Amino acid sequence: MTAISRYGDPDAALRIHNETLALQLAHRSVRKFTPHPVSDEQLTALVAAAQSAPTSSNLQCWSVIAVRDPERKARLAALAAGQQFINEASLFLVWVADLSRARRLAERAGAPLDGADYLETTIVGVVDTALAAQNAAIAAESFGLGTVFVGAVRNHPEEIAAELGLPPHAVATFGLAVGTPDPTENAGIKPRLPQEAVLHREQYLAESADAHIPAYDERLAAYNGRFDLPGNWSERVLDRLAGPQSLMGRHRLRDQFGRLGLPSR
Amino acid sequence: MTAISRYGDPDAALRIHNETLALQLAHRSVRKFTPHPVSDEQLTALVAAAQSAPTSSNLQCWSVIAVRDPERKARLAALAAGQQFINEASLFLVWVADLSRARRLAERAGAPLDGADYLETTIVGVVDTALAAQNAAIAAESFGLGTVFVGAVRNHPEEIAAELGLPPHAVATFGLAVGTPDPTENAGIKPRLPQEAVLHREQYLAESADAHIPAYDERLAAYNGRFDLPGNWSERVLDRLAGPQSLMGRHRLRDQFGRLGLPSR
Repeated sequence: MTAISRYGDPDAALRIHNETLALQLAHRSVRKFTPHPVSDEQLTALVAAAQSAPTSSNLQCWSVIAVRDPERKARLAALAAGQQFINEASLFLVWVADLSRARRLAERAGAPLDGADYLETTIVGVVDTALAAQNAAIAAESFGLGTVFVGAVRNHPEEIAAELGLPPHAVATFGLAVGTPDPTENAGIKPRLPQEAVLHREQYLAESADAHIPAYDERLAAYNGRFDLPGNWSERVLDRLAGPQSLMGRHRLRDQFGRLGLPSR
Repeated sequence: MTAISRYGDPDAALRIHNETLALQLAHRSVRKFTPHPVSDEQLTALVAAAQSAPTSSNLQCWSVIAVRDPERKARLAALAAGQQFINEASLFLVWVADLSRARRLAERAGAPLDGADYLETTIVGVVDTALAAQNAAIAAESFGLGTVFVGAVRNHPEEIAAELGLPPHAVATFGLAVGTPDPTENAGIKPRLPQEAVLHREQYLAESADAHIPAYDERLAAYNGRFDLPGNWSERVLDRLAGPQSLMGRHRLRDQFGRLGLPSR
């Protein structure tokens, strides 16, 4: 049944079922939380799940800052588009692409670390951070908690770094609000593109993949309408990526990453 | 018990247990596969899991190429550091940060898409791709399959794009070899840094976090010794990031991404 919700398509079905897959298919972003706290035992388990994710060459170049202090959450929320759910969530995790640990190793050893200056290493940091955070999000949902990723920590990366005391060569990549879902939230499982639009066999075939977009646009417009949101998928993508003005300040990210010590050259 | 293997620490323990968390904690990279095929039903379920991961503003700016053809796998393996397990794995998934779909929408609509030129959008593409792929990897393990991520598809991104027929504005971010684990593989669960080295509370405290590295260096040197691999963790990190010559050709990635249509400015 869950594949039907995932694709907004009554004909969608999977022939494989298990508990973990069902949990993944049932994912939705939660943006309304009850005050019920996330326990320290849960936090420890979330981080153990995160550390169990793959990491390039075992570099482990990420860190996570667990924020519970209401005043700090309020300051972070103000820096991240004022999203109220950051205040509501018992736990706000800030996931950091962290080349600073390796930089400190190099300083203590008197060794060079010029490889960390390249876009490749920024990508490694960001990918490792994302793999870890997704494992934590899945673990959180397996405990009955709800989550939402917060890209808006990239709206003001230098101020976020100052608030969290990040050392040079470490940048907040995204946040993850974690808490107990408020059952009164008016939200659903957002349908995704038909699988045929994203999965290619042997080679990329743009025309046949894109042929599935019009049906999805209709599905997403209908879904958005349930929540009084305008637009279909294509319109929202075009709005979101139209130009520097549509990036919520993040068109400055390359310069900001450079000043924070990830020159990405 | 699994937290003990994860951290290589007999004192490591979690107070929370469930099936999904146990699956995550038991993760290891699999680099030796039997010829047993990954079924189409399994592939469909893996992609449904991937599409269930969060995606920034529902942009869904990733695609995946499922490669089964032995000759194509051999060519990809040759481009990706000659890693034999790519040939052995029944299924090789290439995960693509894909801004081309949005570019085609914009072309058909006669709309601008200048926001896609910025580092921010490259990061969104890479993060979305990684969240999706990690969900697929977890799903694969829940079916009893084994996986290993392959960053070496970034050694020759232009040749990989040509082999897979990728359109402009789409780049292969990493591969994921998927297959049935060969039980004769001599491999284990690699211990990770102590949790205290990566988890910070409220603010980043470098000194107390790094105090846990020497014990980890000893653990990892002992683990590596079991597989006749030299070096502790710190030494291997310093080797891997020493300079452009240690990046396996990937110090050219920024220019290559630019030529492939992700200028990341």
